[in-house]
Amino acid sequence: MRMHTSARANMRRNTGVYRYKLKIAYDGSQYFGWQVQPGKRTIQGQLENAFFSFTGQHIKVHASGRTDQGVHAAGQVAHVDVPSRFSGQSIEKALNALLDNDIRILQVDRSCATFHAQKNAVSKEYRYFIWNNEVMPPFLRYYRTHIPQPLDVECMNQAARMLVGKKDFASFTANPNRKVETTVRHLSALSVKRKGHEVVIIARSDGFLYKMVRSIAGFLIRVGEGAILPLETQTILRTHLRTAKVQTAPPQGLFLWHVYF
Amino acid sequence: MRMHTSARANMRRNTGVYRYKLKIAYDGSQYFGWQVQPGKRTIQGQLENAFFSFTGQHIKVHASGRTDQGVHAAGQVAHVDVPSRFSGQSIEKALNALLDNDIRILQVDRSCATFHAQKNAVSKEYRYFIWNNEVMPPFLRYYRTHIPQPLDVECMNQAARMLVGKKDFASFTANPNRKVETTVRHLSALSVKRKGHEVVIIARSDGFLYKMVRSIAGFLIRVGEGAILPLETQTILRTHLRTAKVQTAPPQGLFLWHVYF
Repeated sequence: MRMHTSARANMRRNTGVYRYKLKIAYDGSQYFGWQVQPGKRTIQGQLENAFFSFTGQHIKVHASGRTDQGVHAAGQVAHVDVPSRFSGQSIEKALNALLDNDIRILQVDRSCATFHAQKNAVSKEYRYFIWNNEVMPPFLRYYRTHIPQPLDVECMNQAARMLVGKKDFASFTANPNRKVETTVRHLSALSVKRKGHEVVIIARSDGFLYKMVRSIAGFLIRVGEGAILPLETQTILRTHLRTAKVQTAPPQGLFLWHVYF
Repeated sequence: MRMHTSARANMRRNTGVYRYKLKIAYDGSQYFGWQVQPGKRTIQGQLENAFFSFTGQHIKVHASGRTDQGVHAAGQVAHVDVPSRFSGQSIEKALNALLDNDIRILQVDRSCATFHAQKNAVSKEYRYFIWNNEVMPPFLRYYRTHIPQPLDVECMNQAARMLVGKKDFASFTANPNRKVETTVRHLSALSVKRKGHEVVIIARSDGFLYKMVRSIAGFLIRVGEGAILPLETQTILRTHLRTAKVQTAPPQGLFLWHVYF
């Protein structure tokens, strides 16, 4: 165990608890998702190990929400309680020195003691990136889903518009048997944009169901391919049942992009 | 060994040899460079294996030039002689299906029998990419060299301009004891550009010495950091000796960008 001597000295002087807000980016390729699982390499696990090496304390890292295996984050937000006062920058530097370079702390700020990364999050933005050309550039293979046949972005947007609003998304979650109080969610924005060979699906909501973004992405890809008509979106929503028309798109295209507070 | 039956049938019909020009991109991270080496995973080796699986023949893949271990290519060019006539697209599709996804065939065209990827190359462009900000985004870690302290691009360009032209680059090659007829090379262009946190060094020449681009990059980085004055460039060139002022920059920032014919 490595431990900064300054941290050790600090802890002897202070007895208070200080809350910090962390902004984190990670490449999810090599992880079993965010959440700590025994014997598995997870983002939360690596962060908590780094905090332990830095402070000598078991510190829980609370995220705005979990991300699944293989999913990336450009702007995950978490909060921690540290039993000693540090500058945000010294926490940032210490953690980045301890962590593997596929997890990076982008910013650390002191926050008020009541700030909660999950409860205070007003909404979250996910982006799903597709490389829509015959050959996938090797440098993007971990960060894009490859769809060789041309996608009709206008059709995808027609379908996307029908999904926006407060609706029952039971047809767009991977496991409807999971105990959730309700499958009604408010999807505040959903749009599809093309830039050259890149197609990106942008989704924003105050709460997503399990694998909801990847289910929507898988559905919109099939619409873009012409396999499903945009008009069918209404019917699929109304069935409240997951069918073969909605496939979960692979994780490597998905980024937790931004958390709004 | 996999072999397309159509390829086998074709070979019985044809006895000629057909030359093709290949445009190739690769992520060099997992390779011991371009050139075939016994027991090592190389780009050329993987391509020749793929050709063998496709045609049942040992076909040599001649590149415009080698790239070193860990160096990438966005536009490597090679030629091959195939003992059977295929469409360029069928070769492209077959190879991409056989190769790992860190090597991609971007284009295949029939060429005249005298086309030679190395001898006919008029010049080559290399690009060296630097991430010049405190924290390195995890998604770029294999494709950028990380320099946290701010680089002075204007100083780097002052030094770069002194390197342009026909000069003896003995001070800018990694191993001056290597048997080369001359260390004089014509560097036709060298410039440094910044776009946000990204700094890119663009070098063009009809021929580079061993590790010349990475030596120039390592030198320009030190100039950008203020450790070497741009004016010292002349002195370093004139010594014709490799000194500690010229360090070889790491391979992951370097891309063979384009080959001109």
